[in-house]
Formats: sequence, structure tokens, C-alpha cells
Amino acid sequence: MRIDEVDFFYLSMPEVLDIGDGSQDVLLVRIRAGGITGWGECEASPLVSIASYVTPMSHSACKPVRDSVLGQRLESAGDILRIGNEVRANSLDLLQADHTLSGIDMAMWDLLGKRQQQPVWAMLGVKHPEPKQPYASQLFGDTAQETLEAAKSVRAEGYHAAKFGWGPFGRGSVEDDSAQVEAAREGLGPDAILLVDAGTVWIDDVEVARQRLDVLRRAQVTWLEEPFVSGAFASYRALAAEAAPVVLAGGEGSHNVWQAQHMIDHAGIGFVQIDAGRIGGISQAAAVAQYAMSRGVTYVNHTFTSHLALSASLVPFAGMAEDVICEYPVAPKSVARDLTRNHLERDADGMISLNDRPGLGMDIDTDAVRRYLVDAEIRVGGEVLYRTPEI
Amino acid sequence: MRIDEVDFFYLSMPEVLDIGDGSQDVLLVRIRAGGITGWGECEASPLVSIASYVTPMSHSACKPVRDSVLGQRLESAGDILRIGNEVRANSLDLLQADHTLSGIDMAMWDLLGKRQQQPVWAMLGVKHPEPKQPYASQLFGDTAQETLEAAKSVRAEGYHAAKFGWGPFGRGSVEDDSAQVEAAREGLGPDAILLVDAGTVWIDDVEVARQRLDVLRRAQVTWLEEPFVSGAFASYRALAAEAAPVVLAGGEGSHNVWQAQHMIDHAGIGFVQIDAGRIGGISQAAAVAQYAMSRGVTYVNHTFTSHLALSASLVPFAGMAEDVICEYPVAPKSVARDLTRNHLERDADGMISLNDRPGLGMDIDTDAVRRYLVDAEIRVGGEVLYRTPEI
Repeated sequence: MRIDEVDFFYLSMPEVLDIGDGSQDVLLVRIRAGGITGWGECEASPLVSIASYVTPMSHSACKPVRDSVLGQRLESAGDILRIGNEVRANSLDLLQADHTLSGIDMAMWDLLGKRQQQPVWAMLGVKHPEPKQPYASQLFGDTAQETLEAAKSVRAEGYHAAKFGWGPFGRGSVEDDSAQVEAAREGLGPDAILLVDAGTVWIDDVEVARQRLDVLRRAQVTWLEEPFVSGAFASYRALAAEAAPVVLAGGEGSHNVWQAQHMIDHAGIGFVQIDAGRIGGISQAAAVAQYAMSRGVTYVNHTFTSHLALSASLVPFAGMAEDVICEYPVAPKSVARDLTRNHLERDADGMISLNDRPGLGMDIDTDAVRRYLVDAEIRVGGEVLYRTPEI
Repeated sequence: MRIDEVDFFYLSMPEVLDIGDGSQDVLLVRIRAGGITGWGECEASPLVSIASYVTPMSHSACKPVRDSVLGQRLESAGDILRIGNEVRANSLDLLQADHTLSGIDMAMWDLLGKRQQQPVWAMLGVKHPEPKQPYASQLFGDTAQETLEAAKSVRAEGYHAAKFGWGPFGRGSVEDDSAQVEAAREGLGPDAILLVDAGTVWIDDVEVARQRLDVLRRAQVTWLEEPFVSGAFASYRALAAEAAPVVLAGGEGSHNVWQAQHMIDHAGIGFVQIDAGRIGGISQAAAVAQYAMSRGVTYVNHTFTSHLALSASLVPFAGMAEDVICEYPVAPKSVARDLTRNHLERDADGMISLNDRPGLGMDIDTDAVRRYLVDAEIRVGGEVLYRTPEI
């Protein structure tokens, strides 16, 4: 079979708030081949990823992503890898292409799994998907009191692990940050896993990060995530050297395998966090998971959107029993929640697992897609390159 | 003064060919503040960079580039750096943003230079711009005979250095590549500097690259550029260790300072090639130039477009007398050539120098802009986010 159609659906909440919540819009990808439909999702900035799919060619190494995808043979996992390699070569100078490819890669895996009547994890050689411990991923409150209540609430919902991040953290005084972290620990109780996400707020400033280590240790924080931007390896290394027992986590900014490998090799992180919606899809994320394992670094998904993206993000480390913790968006906006009819719900032990249905195992709610669909159009030289398609 | 207007002009040849020639389209940026106009240029895929300027916000760290630029105070070099930092923080998850920022950064420097009646190089502390030796940058011919003629032609035009790249090189047999490289050397004569650009064709395959080392040595090639993709550090290091006296060059794919630094530190390159139109502009390119100098790596511009981009690309190493070689697009398409009324022409010694006029010292030919202007429009939710502006 060949890829007959690739369509992008830009969904959004009616109002997008200026907060660190990545679940406020969705770029859904639909691929059709041989009468079968596959679905995927690209992380962040739907319009720009759509533009990179349809943009006119600038030169031989700066082609629209479309040129490497539409009409391609899609019969095997090897075809998916080949198409990804073609996108990377033909769109070498198109920076956004990795995000666009990510959703396409997921949709190809979903489609091929449905064709072969196999879950994607099985196609990647996994015998049974290991249960993962979901951590409730959410934003710090505007005040420590709000954070306390949020932490109590996730504990009451049965989570044994939670991450707080963004919001005011790292932008004010050490005392303010201490109050926030202590509130999170108090609300979760002494036995829960507490993770803190600084959201790159200190760029590369080791000293200001160092001032927060004491409170992180006192609150028995397992990891400090993204104290710095992804590239600031020297700052990561310096902080990692004195942070124990707190471990550094990072990597969500990686948009190709190389960047994630370099971070594993040179940034002193103990957890590498990969967003399958950015790094080029399941194919690339799985390569990072293997590399991380070989280097003794724990692989974790980065997911702050829908359960379609969550399902795809769990596949790369589905077979790795020791890398048990996983990001779980506990309070996504309705556009992300409503995208799928089914969800990866926690079992009686509070764990989540991939299901054993073909492909990515998720049902897209096309009524919901219609409800949140954003009307968009791109014209160049009098020609319509993109118009919101029918669903 | 404050930034009152930022406009993007997408220019293109009537037909864009499927060849490795980056001069076939242009994304020109015009910024107005305090009644003064500054100009800059973004590398590659104009539509996608325009989209990243106007795209709706996805969340607090995925805002359109516009939100960090329009209305900003612009009085000093510090303001330019601050605006760049804001773009990187506010558009952290918008991959294309670095390309978009690049042209904006150039235009801000141009504008501020005109305001202060100083060349940009002087604003960066350079006493007088060092003359650079231009290498004629061009594509391999489809046959060795075509390459021979092209090499003879650039030699006849007085160039003492030339680079051949892309085209069939690296895609066929070792014998084919040998014939191409030997033809280039024969055409240039024994005393000229010959550079070869593999255009990432071998991805990360050291063995296939290694097979070409003998002919490169025999032809006294100074550097082999981009044998691999930017991230393949281990492959770069392995090849570098056995390539002498041929030296590896790379880095044009860097879209932030960190990536260029990592390549300098870990890839064994002797020349780092930076495109100011991709890495975030003159500000970021200058930081790489300083870092390269501290590590004993030679800085070279990457420029395959207009003389506006060339002027901006020379600023970062304008004061570095030892880093003398510079990329010079010898046969750009007319859209790139016609963009400016003046050009950085070779002097009697065959060298080029930045001029001493305020800003970037280039006059935009607005008639030419109108001639090549592409009509484009982006609509989201019934609102026109971009429409080709008046020039």
C-alpha cells in the first residue's frame, strides 16, 4: 500500500491561556493508506508544523515534509524508518520538520499496526508492555497554599507520584521556592515521589540553581527537571556534581536522536525525558530509549497533551521494566482529554499500561475533533496550500 | 525608541530548482523604529518562518516570535540581546523560532547602527574590519567535465579559493567522486585553495567517507565539509582522527550557540561554519566566533544567499585577522543578487571587506523586492495573521 492522504487538524481551546500548560491545543495527523486510517499528534505550535508540511521548496535540502511522505510505500517498519530518513535529508534546512514528522511517524505506526492487527509495542519486539507508575504532572499554584491544595488533591486521587513545575517557581526568592516545594511535599505526604520541574528558568545560571538544592534535598525531591536550557551541558554537569541525592532530568527539547544522546553523554542527567511528538516520533524515541539503557540513564516520556500522544510516548520504553515512572497529564484541558474516546486509566494498583489493541489502541472522537477544530488557510502565489480538511 | 513595525517579504525565483542552491528564495525582514528602517534576512523556508512569527500561542513557552519583538525598546546592543533572550524563552517549544529571530536580529543591528551612525562591526568593538579571502562557493557539475569547466571559470575570474559541493558528490562510486575532485583541482590549478562539501550525504557512515580520504589528500583539499549530519559527533571524531592533512568543517546546521559549542568541543572539526541567518543572528554568531577562537577552531561564515546576509555573516569574525577565509556565493540566483543595490566586491588583491557605512551598509533595492515578491496569506479562525505587506 501507498500513503494516499495526509491531513492535519488544528484543534484548540476557545481561549489559550498564558500558562505552562501544553494541553491547550492539538495538531492531529490523519494518514490513509490501503483503506486504513492511522492517527498521530505533533507537539506545539500547530500552524507552524502545518506550514512546514506544505511550504514551497527552497532548494534540494529544504523541501516541504509532504514531498517525502505522500505517495510513499508503507508496508513495513522499515518503510517508516526510510520515510523518516528521507524527511530528515530532504528537509535538512527546515527547522520545524522534526515536529511535523513526529505526528506523521506516530500515524504511520498506528496505521501499520492496524493493518497487521498488532499493537505498535508488539511490532517493536516487546512481549508484554510493562506497567508504568504515572506521576501526576501539573503546574505549581500561584501561591504555596494553592500548591498544597493541588498536592492534597492528587494524593486523594490516589497518585503516589507527582510533579510540580513552571508557574512562579524559580522566578522569585529562594524562600518563595522553598515554600512551594515544602507545600508540595506536605500535600503529597512523606512517602510519595515528588518531582520538580524548573522549566529552563535559570537558562545556564548554576549559582541560582544551587541555592535551591537544600530545599529540594529536605523535601526529598527525586529529580530536578530542566534547571537549564537543553544545550547548557556545562551547567547541567556542574549542578549534577553537587545535587545528590537529587538527580537531574532533562531532554524534552531534543528534536533528534543526536541531541538526546549528547545530553545523556555530556549533561550528567539521570533521567532523559523524550517527547515522541518532537523528536521525530516513536522511531526516534525508541532509539533514545535503547541508548539511555546502554548508558545507565533512566528513560521517561514527556507528555503534556492527549492520550493519543501518551500512548505513542509509552511505546519506546514499553518493554523496559526498570524504567517504571511515566509522565501522566492529570488535568489536561478538555481539547486534549476529549480527543480520544478511550483513555489509559490507572488500574487498581495505580499503574497504567498500554492496551493490546492494534496500532496505538486509541479511538479518535471525530465529533470532538469537529468541536475544537480551528479554521485555517495558507495561500502562496494564489494557490491554496492548506485549508482545514473535512473530518 | 520602540519597535513599531516588523514586516516579512517572501521573495522567490519564478521557478525553484531541485538543486543544492540556497539562493533561490529570500525571506527579507524590515524593522522600523524611531523613523529608521533596518533590514535582515532569514535562511531557508520563508513561509515557515513567517508562520512562526504570527502563529497563535500554544502555551506560555510557545508564543509567536512577534510577542517578544513588537513594541520592544530598542536603544542599545543590550536591548538586542535582551529581545533575543525573550524570543528563546517565550518561543522555547517553537522549533522554527531561531531562524525567524535570525533575520530580526540582523535588522535590529542594522537599524541601531543607522541610528548611531556606526557600522555594526564598530558597535561590536572591531577597530577595522579585516579583509577576508572569498572562496567561490558553488555546486559540483553533473559530470567531472562540467566541474572542470566551472573550476577553470572561477580561476579565470581571479578566485584563489573555491568550494565544490552537493550535486552528485558522495552519491555514486569512489571513482566518480575522485574524477570530480580531480577535475576541480585541475581547473583551479595547483596553487589555489580547494574545499569540498559533502552536504551531509553520508549521514553518519564513517566507512564510506573514509574511502574518499585518499583522493581528497591527493588533490590537496583543505577541508572536507559536512561528511555527516551535524549531530553525528562520534562519526566526525572518528573521521577527523585519520583525515590529516585534510581537516573537517561543519556547523551550519547549528540553530543556537550551544549546538555550535558542542560541535567545537566534541566533533573534532577544525573549521566551524556558522550561518547568521539560522543561529539567531549576528549576536549569537559572534558568541560562537569568540568561543571558536578560545578553542583554536577557525570560524567561517556560511552564506549562500544575498549580500545582505553576507554582510551580516562577516560581522561576527570581522576583527579576527587569522580567520581569513570566507564563503562567497559566486553565482547566486538573480533574486539574491538583485536584493541589494551594492555588493561586497573583491578588491585588487581579490579580498573582500565590510564597508564603513552605518548599520550593515547595504542598500535594499525595493524595486527588485517588488519584482520577486511572492503573494502569501495566512488565516486562522477567520483572522488574517499574515498578508504580504506593501514595500
